[in-house]
Amino acid sequence: MLTKEEWMEEVKAILANEYHHRHPFQIQLQEGKLNKAQIQAWALNRYFYQSHIPVKDAIIISRLSDPQLRVQWRKRLEHHDGTDNSVGGVQNWLNLTRALGFPDEYVTSGIGVLPATRFSVQAYVQFCKEKSVLEAVASSLTEIGARSLIETRTAGMLEHYDFIDKKSLQYFFERLKQNDGKSTGVMEYLVKTVKTPQQVTQVLDSVVFKCQVLWAQSDALYSAYVNPGILPYGAYDPIVQLGSAYKLADGIVLEKDACRIQGPEKAFSLNPTAFQFINSLSHRKPLECLIAESIAEHPQQSSQVQQDLMKLCRDLLEKGIIAPCN
Amino acid sequence: MLTKEEWMEEVKAILANEYHHRHPFQIQLQEGKLNKAQIQAWALNRYFYQSHIPVKDAIIISRLSDPQLRVQWRKRLEHHDGTDNSVGGVQNWLNLTRALGFPDEYVTSGIGVLPATRFSVQAYVQFCKEKSVLEAVASSLTEIGARSLIETRTAGMLEHYDFIDKKSLQYFFERLKQNDGKSTGVMEYLVKTVKTPQQVTQVLDSVVFKCQVLWAQSDALYSAYVNPGILPYGAYDPIVQLGSAYKLADGIVLEKDACRIQGPEKAFSLNPTAFQFINSLSHRKPLECLIAESIAEHPQQSSQVQQDLMKLCRDLLEKGIIAPCN
Repeated sequence: MLTKEEWMEEVKAILANEYHHRHPFQIQLQEGKLNKAQIQAWALNRYFYQSHIPVKDAIIISRLSDPQLRVQWRKRLEHHDGTDNSVGGVQNWLNLTRALGFPDEYVTSGIGVLPATRFSVQAYVQFCKEKSVLEAVASSLTEIGARSLIETRTAGMLEHYDFIDKKSLQYFFERLKQNDGKSTGVMEYLVKTVKTPQQVTQVLDSVVFKCQVLWAQSDALYSAYVNPGILPYGAYDPIVQLGSAYKLADGIVLEKDACRIQGPEKAFSLNPTAFQFINSLSHRKPLECLIAESIAEHPQQSSQVQQDLMKLCRDLLEKGIIAPCN
Repeated sequence: MLTKEEWMEEVKAILANEYHHRHPFQIQLQEGKLNKAQIQAWALNRYFYQSHIPVKDAIIISRLSDPQLRVQWRKRLEHHDGTDNSVGGVQNWLNLTRALGFPDEYVTSGIGVLPATRFSVQAYVQFCKEKSVLEAVASSLTEIGARSLIETRTAGMLEHYDFIDKKSLQYFFERLKQNDGKSTGVMEYLVKTVKTPQQVTQVLDSVVFKCQVLWAQSDALYSAYVNPGILPYGAYDPIVQLGSAYKLADGIVLEKDACRIQGPEKAFSLNPTAFQFINSLSHRKPLECLIAESIAEHPQQSSQVQQDLMKLCRDLLEKGIIAPCN
C-alpha cells in the first residue's frame, strides 16, 4: 500500500499535531520554567511508564510468530532491561530520580504515582495485548518523534537546572544511541504487512492512540503540579521530602508521659503511630530512614507503612506541628 | 472480621476524603459556576463512563458462582440497561445530553471523549476482570457516597442552569430510587466473605481505587475545559456546536469555479472536502445534518467523517473563514 517514505510522512503528520512535544508541561520542562518539585513529579511518574515499556514489548514478542521479528524486537527488551554488558533504560532512569532526591525503593514501589499515569500506562499495555499485532507494533512509532524531543529536552534541562547533570540524564543519552528516529524495523514490517486501506487506518489510529497515552500523562502532571495544582489524594506531595529530616516546630513540646503534644495555645493527643513518629524525630534522621525503620518492624506491609507515614508527615507539616530541619 | 456498621464506618472514612464530591469540578457544577459548554463536556464524558457500568456488572455476574448473588447483581444490569417496563440509566443519560444539544449518535459514538476518561473507565472494567471477585464487588461501594452527591447536584443544577430541567436529570432521580446509600447486598456479602485482615485491606483498597477512577475523570474535565483549559487533540471542542448552522464570514466569498475562497486580503485554495463542506453551508443546515449527509455518502467511515468534518469546521472557525449563523 504505502512505501517507507509515505509511511514516514503520514506518521510525522500525526506527530506534528498530537505528540507530547507540544504539551505545555514538556515545553516548560525544557525551557527551565518548572521547579524541582515539578520535575520530581515528572521523573517519578515517568518511571512508572518507563518500567512498563519492557512489559509491553514482551507482550508484543509473545504475539509475533516470525522468529526473526522476535529477535529484532528483543533488542527493545535489551535496551530497557539491560544485558551483561550494558545497563538498561529502567535502571538508568533511576539516576534521574536519585539526583532528584528519591530513594530507589520509593520510586520502584509505585507509591505516589498519579492514578491517571497508571490508567494511561495500563491502557497502553492492554492495547498491546488486545489489539491486532499490527496495531501493537505500530503504536511504537511515536519513537520517531522522540529523538528531537530528547535532544531539546536534555539540552534545556542541562542549561536551566543546577540539580541536573549529564549522569542524571544518562537514560536519554542512551536512547539517542538506540533510536535513530527512523523506526526502520517497524517501517519494513508495515511495508510488508499492510495490504488494505483498513490496515492503513489501523496503523495510523495506533499512532494517535499512543500520542493520547503520552499526552494524558503530561496533562495529569500539569493539572496536579503546575496548574490548577489539584493534587489527587495519595499522589506524591512535594511538601513531604523523603531526603529531609523534620523536627518539632518552634513552640511545640512533646509530652511523652501523656502521649500528647502541647502547642502555645492547645494540646493534641496522639495515636500510637503519631507518637512513635514524633518521638523518633529527635534523632534528626531523614524521613526515608524513619520509614525504613518502620518497615523493618512491619515487613509485610511495607507500602502501607510508607504511605501512612508520608501522609502523617504531611498532616503534621500542614498543621504546623513539625517543620523541616533547615 | 467486621460488622456491617464497622464496614460502613471504614468506607465512609475513605469517601469523606477521596470521593469526587470534593473535586472542584463537581463543586462548581452544583454551584452554578460552570458554563453550558463545560457541562456538555461533563455529560458527554460521563456517558462513556455510564455506558460501561453494565459492562463491568456483567463481568462481575460472570464471576459469581452463587446463583443467588448473580440474581441480586442482575438488578444492576436492569437499572442501567432497562427492562420491559422501565427505561435504563444509560438511555436516561441521553435525556441530559439531548437537552445540552448533542445528537444521540455523537454521544454514543464515543467521539470527542477525553482519552483520560477512556483510560480510567477501561481501568475500572479491567479491575473487575482481573482482581479477585471480592475486590470487584467491593469497588461498587462508592455508591454509598453517590446518594447525597446526587441530591446536592440535582438541586444545584435545577436552580442555576436554565437549560437544565427535571426531565434532563431523569437519570439521577431514578438512581435515587435504586440506591438507598446503604449498599445492603454488598455489605452482607462482605460480612459473610471477609475472613482475614488482608481481605479487609483488599476491600478498602478497592474503594480507594474506585475513588481514583472517578477523581481522574473530574481532573481530566477540569484540566481540559476549566483550568488550564488544555484541550487534548480530538477531544470535544465547544467551539464547534453540532446543533448550530454556520455561514461564510463577512467579507469571505466562495469562488466555485476556482475551488477557492477569497478574503478581503488573500485567497485560499480548498481541497475537495473543504470545498464541498463550504459549498453546503449555503443551505444553512445545522452541522449535524451536514455530517449525516456526508456519512450517508461514506457509510463505512462514519466516525472518521464525523471527526474530520468537526475538525475542519473548527479550523475554519479559528481562521475566521466561517461563523455561526445569527
